[in-house]
Amino acid sequence: MHTVKLSLGERSYDIEIGANLDEAGARLQGLCLGRKMAVVTNPTVKGLYGGRLIESLKAGGFLVMSIEIPDGEQYKNLDWVNSIYTALLINSFDRKSALVALGGGVIGDLTGFAAATFMRGVPFVQVPTTLLAMVDSSVGGKTGVNHPMGKNMIGAFYQPKKVLMDLSVLRGLPREELLSGMAEVIKYGVIRDAAFFDYLEKNREKILSLDPDALEYVVRRSCEIKAEVVSKDEREGGLRAVLNFGHTVGHAIETAENYRMRHGYAVAVGMVYASRLAHKTGLCGAAVPERVEHLVRSYNLPSDLSALGRKPAVAALMDTMQLDKKAEGGKVKFVLPKRIGEVVITKEWDEGALRDILKS
Amino acid sequence: MHTVKLSLGERSYDIEIGANLDEAGARLQGLCLGRKMAVVTNPTVKGLYGGRLIESLKAGGFLVMSIEIPDGEQYKNLDWVNSIYTALLINSFDRKSALVALGGGVIGDLTGFAAATFMRGVPFVQVPTTLLAMVDSSVGGKTGVNHPMGKNMIGAFYQPKKVLMDLSVLRGLPREELLSGMAEVIKYGVIRDAAFFDYLEKNREKILSLDPDALEYVVRRSCEIKAEVVSKDEREGGLRAVLNFGHTVGHAIETAENYRMRHGYAVAVGMVYASRLAHKTGLCGAAVPERVEHLVRSYNLPSDLSALGRKPAVAALMDTMQLDKKAEGGKVKFVLPKRIGEVVITKEWDEGALRDILKS
Repeated sequence: MHTVKLSLGERSYDIEIGANLDEAGARLQGLCLGRKMAVVTNPTVKGLYGGRLIESLKAGGFLVMSIEIPDGEQYKNLDWVNSIYTALLINSFDRKSALVALGGGVIGDLTGFAAATFMRGVPFVQVPTTLLAMVDSSVGGKTGVNHPMGKNMIGAFYQPKKVLMDLSVLRGLPREELLSGMAEVIKYGVIRDAAFFDYLEKNREKILSLDPDALEYVVRRSCEIKAEVVSKDEREGGLRAVLNFGHTVGHAIETAENYRMRHGYAVAVGMVYASRLAHKTGLCGAAVPERVEHLVRSYNLPSDLSALGRKPAVAALMDTMQLDKKAEGGKVKFVLPKRIGEVVITKEWDEGALRDILKS
Repeated sequence: MHTVKLSLGERSYDIEIGANLDEAGARLQGLCLGRKMAVVTNPTVKGLYGGRLIESLKAGGFLVMSIEIPDGEQYKNLDWVNSIYTALLINSFDRKSALVALGGGVIGDLTGFAAATFMRGVPFVQVPTTLLAMVDSSVGGKTGVNHPMGKNMIGAFYQPKKVLMDLSVLRGLPREELLSGMAEVIKYGVIRDAAFFDYLEKNREKILSLDPDALEYVVRRSCEIKAEVVSKDEREGGLRAVLNFGHTVGHAIETAENYRMRHGYAVAVGMVYASRLAHKTGLCGAAVPERVEHLVRSYNLPSDLSALGRKPAVAALMDTMQLDKKAEGGKVKFVLPKRIGEVVITKEWDEGALRDILKS
C-alpha cells in the first residue's frame, strides 16, 4: 500500500492507494468520527462491494446504514441530495456522523456535497470504485451537483477525512470506464510531468491489462500531481485551474450532448482540441497536438466528435463555454500546453482558430 | 459610523454599523467584486429600501439585478435556493459576481447559502434590515435553510465580504420585530457581559424609543461580543456554542409549533427556561432566572408558553431537542448561566427538572 498525503493544514488527509476494502473499518479509526455512518452508493456498486465494505465498517465498531442513489449522471442533482438529508434526519444522524461515498464520481460528488451541507458540514470518506474517481474526483475536495443549465454549478469545496482506494475493484470495471479514467491520467502527464507522459506511451499494454504494479504507479503518480496542485491552491484562485486542461471543451460537449458522452471521452477530445488551439495560437509546435492525439488514440479514446454520430453545433458549444464556471466577465480561460509537461492558463487564444477546430 | 472587525485571517471582514444605505455602492469598492451583482430581498423590504440600495450600487459602477423571495420563514428552503441559482445562471453570473442580501434573517441565511454553493462559492454582502439580523444572523457566517424535519438542517459556514447596517431602517420595523431582536441582545449580556445586562435593565425606555445613541451602542456591543466569540471558534468546535443560550428550547418550540412563534420570542422563553434549569441543576442562585425573566418581560417578550394559546406537548419538545444539530450521540448540550455574564456548556443537566419547567 502507498499513502499520498494531501497537505492542507488542519484539513490534511491521507489517500491510501492499495488499501483493502475489508480493512476499511480499521483504517477509519482515529479520525474522531461518530459511531453512526451512512454508506452512499448506487445499486450496481452496492451489489459488487457494498457487503464487504459494510461488514468491515461494522467490524470496526460503526453503526452503518446504506443510502442508494440510482446509477447515472442524471441523478447528480439537488433532489437526490435532499433525499440524503431526509434519510440522515430520519435516522437521527448528528454532526459527527460520517458519510462514506462508495462509487464513482457521481456518488463521490453528490455525497461530498451532502456532507458539506448537512448540519453545515459532517465528516466524509471517499471510497472510489472507478479509475476516474481514483485519479480525479475523489481527491481535492470539489463536491457538487448539476443544475439543468450546467454541470457542477451547485457545490462546495469540502475535503474528505480520508480516501481509501482498493485497486482490485478496477478488475470489475467496464472497459469504457477504465479508458475514461485514462483520459485524466494522460492529462497529468501533459500538465505537469513529461516523464509520466513517456511512461504512459511506453506501458500501454501493461496498464490496459491491469498489471498491478503499473496500475498502482499510474494511480499514485496521478494522485501525487493532483495533491501537489491542490495543496498549493485549494479553491482554484490560480494554479489549480491547470487541472481543467481538456475540460473547457469537454464540459461544453457534455452539456450540449446532455451527458451522452462519457466524461473522460469528452476530456480526451477536449485535450486534443486544446492542444491544437495551443499550436494554432503559437504557444507550441505541431508535435504537441500530434503526441497528445496519438496517446489518446492508443488508449482507444476519441480524438474528435465523430463518435457522437452527429456533431453538436459550433455556436452551441461556444455559448456553453461562456457559461462555464471558469469564465469571468464572459471570457473563457483556456489551459494550453507550451510543451508536454507544462501548460499556461490564458484568456489570449484565437477564437477563429477554435471555431475551425470545432468544425473540422 | 462605527466599524467592528471580525478577524478570521483571509476571511476577515468589516461590520459597518451606522452606514448609510445610499453609500452602499461606494462602501463595496475595493473588495474585488465582479461587476454583476444580485440583490436578493423580499417584496416588503424591496418596496421600502430596494430602490435606494440598487441606485447606490449602480452609482458605484455595478450591474444590478434583483431577485425576490416571498416573505416568510416557510420560504427558507432548498426550492427557493434553487430559484436563485436559476436566476443567476439565466443572467450569466460568474464566480466573481456578488450576492447582496437585503432583508432579515430569512433573506440573509438563504442568500448566504446560495452564495456558499453557487459555483462552489461566490462573494456576498449582508445588508440586514431587522434588529435580529443586525445583532445575530448577518454576523458570523452561519448560512442555511430549513428541512421539513428541522430548522437550519441544511447549510454551510460561509463568511460575507462585508456587513452594512443602516440603523435608520429600524424605524420602519414592526414593534414585534424590534422586540424579537432584543431577545438576542439580552442573550449577549447573559453569556458574556454583566455590565451590558445592567445597561439593558437601566436604558429600556431609550432603547425602545429608538434613541440613536442607545441603538448604536446596543448593536455595536452585540456585534463586538458575537465577533469575539466567532473569531475564536468559527465552526462551533466549542466556545461558539455559548451563542446558543436560549436556543435549545427556543428551536424546539419553533419546530413543534411550525414557526408560529417569532424566533426572538421563542429564544426569550428558552432563556428563561434555561436559566431556571441552571438554577434547578445547582449551577446558579435563584436571582439569575429572576433577573432574566424580569428583563425579558420588561421588553414585552414572553417568559413562558402561555402566549401560544395551547402548550406544545412536553414529549414533543423533548424529542425535537434530541434532533437538534447540537445534540451529539442523542444527548443535548445546554448552555446554562453560572451568573449573569458567564455561561457553561454542559451535558450534565437534570432531565426531570427540564420536564417540570416545560410543564409549568
